[in-house]
Amino acid sequence: MYDCLIVGMGPAGMSAGIYAKRSGLKTIILEKNTPGGLINITNLVDNYLGYDNITGPELAMKMFEHVKNNEVEYKIEEVKKITKDNNIFKIETNKNKYEAKTVILAGGRQPRKLDLEEKLSDLKISRCAICDAPLYKEKDVLVIGAGNSAFEEGIYLSEFANHLTILARSEVKADEEMVETAKNKENITIIEGEEIKDVITENEAYKVITPNNTIKVDGIFSYIGYSPMTEYLSNLNILESTGYIETKETETLVPGLFACGDIIKKDLYQIVTATSEGALSATKAKKYLTELEK
Amino acid sequence: MYDCLIVGMGPAGMSAGIYAKRSGLKTIILEKNTPGGLINITNLVDNYLGYDNITGPELAMKMFEHVKNNEVEYKIEEVKKITKDNNIFKIETNKNKYEAKTVILAGGRQPRKLDLEEKLSDLKISRCAICDAPLYKEKDVLVIGAGNSAFEEGIYLSEFANHLTILARSEVKADEEMVETAKNKENITIIEGEEIKDVITENEAYKVITPNNTIKVDGIFSYIGYSPMTEYLSNLNILESTGYIETKETETLVPGLFACGDIIKKDLYQIVTATSEGALSATKAKKYLTELEK
Repeated sequence: MYDCLIVGMGPAGMSAGIYAKRSGLKTIILEKNTPGGLINITNLVDNYLGYDNITGPELAMKMFEHVKNNEVEYKIEEVKKITKDNNIFKIETNKNKYEAKTVILAGGRQPRKLDLEEKLSDLKISRCAICDAPLYKEKDVLVIGAGNSAFEEGIYLSEFANHLTILARSEVKADEEMVETAKNKENITIIEGEEIKDVITENEAYKVITPNNTIKVDGIFSYIGYSPMTEYLSNLNILESTGYIETKETETLVPGLFACGDIIKKDLYQIVTATSEGALSATKAKKYLTELEK
Repeated sequence: MYDCLIVGMGPAGMSAGIYAKRSGLKTIILEKNTPGGLINITNLVDNYLGYDNITGPELAMKMFEHVKNNEVEYKIEEVKKITKDNNIFKIETNKNKYEAKTVILAGGRQPRKLDLEEKLSDLKISRCAICDAPLYKEKDVLVIGAGNSAFEEGIYLSEFANHLTILARSEVKADEEMVETAKNKENITIIEGEEIKDVITENEAYKVITPNNTIKVDGIFSYIGYSPMTEYLSNLNILESTGYIETKETETLVPGLFACGDIIKKDLYQIVTATSEGALSATKAKKYLTELEK
């Protein structure tokens, strides 16, 4: 029986693990893939205070070493189902069954991929405007996407870029006000309802070919959405219609069940917000157990 | 005229500075003392994910270097007054006057000091149970304080320590329920209404002498409170009765004025929560300016 079982080993889950272990809880982290989560597919991290200009995988490794130095137990297993019975959580993975008094969900989310990414392995697609905008000062940029993320990040990028094209492959779905703002920017062009036929790489730049256009750019951003990895939690009634988990300061609707990081509905999806929520959820798990055992 | 002026250069202010600068805002940080804030008086930091077992001052230096590498402007000046006039903030320091479109308050707080700390320079007083509890496994510990913090942290520490004394120099002021929990712990002794007369250091242990007791311990924790450094903000009507700033996701009651880190009222005062709030406040400042300029 664990005091605290954590699902996911990105920044949120690792921070939760360190806080839970250091507060004296018998703790385990379960991760289905590589420790580090989305950082592993981030080129450069520039905004995690204390580490300047570090590659994503390198930062992930430093965090993972921190977890190991604190002797937090972990296993590479995929959680398949969680149920709660008499204040005890039962967790089934692809290999084992566990019991725990509290569970912290930190399973994160994954970016949806463009078909052509799988075909063209030399294509470098960025997914974080806040992180990578400074790389595209005075350059030409393509943003792929039709929703709020694509327009919000596109408007943000247009302040750095020389010229920016937003390519909505379907019809535009972003809020009208945001679309108006984009239309009023002199350096933004919006193309609607065109699929990408091909991308040709030339001297570190790209030619993106659609039925009616050939767009030459220095960088490509993709905002065709993220999917929170929460399908296996559908029995717990903690999900919003979008699949994200509804929380109040990391507490879910189920007592003893907490959630943190990219898996929850929130304003800012960043490494610093994830580590903060990880610490908070572990502190709340400790407090919940202290009150339960009174 | 700055887009964003940040008061304070602890983890919250530095994280805010990096996010504000990287989002394209003309940014300045004002700090009256040393960059790093309270970390500078922390022996060891073990729970900031990615840095294991680093001294406080060393972590502060790494964060400060990160700020400097991002070319965030900063000055060592003490802010004396902030007023708002026609959407413009006017900031007076001990040396200069500034104008800014947004202000982020990240001035932190300072622990109140025991009189004897100033007399006895070799006394090492800890102020963070979550951080330092593992150092006192099976050891004898003294907690000085009469309020909720002293009892909450004392109960926490008692799970690690061999024996723990809570010394309330006045009458006990903590919540009854918490005091009951402490009284029911076999390894906690509560001493009420006794001042400390002297402390003698012997072989890395301490003899703490009060009128009726001599308490021999391996470590001393002090929870006689913190004071948020907010006196100069009293004209803005953003303070709670305790002196902390009331916020909702880093927004204060004054549009364009944000606050983050130890200066705000919240549940968990940690480096990770401060850096997260710093990032959030800068992101909100950027959004506020974008909407203002529409």
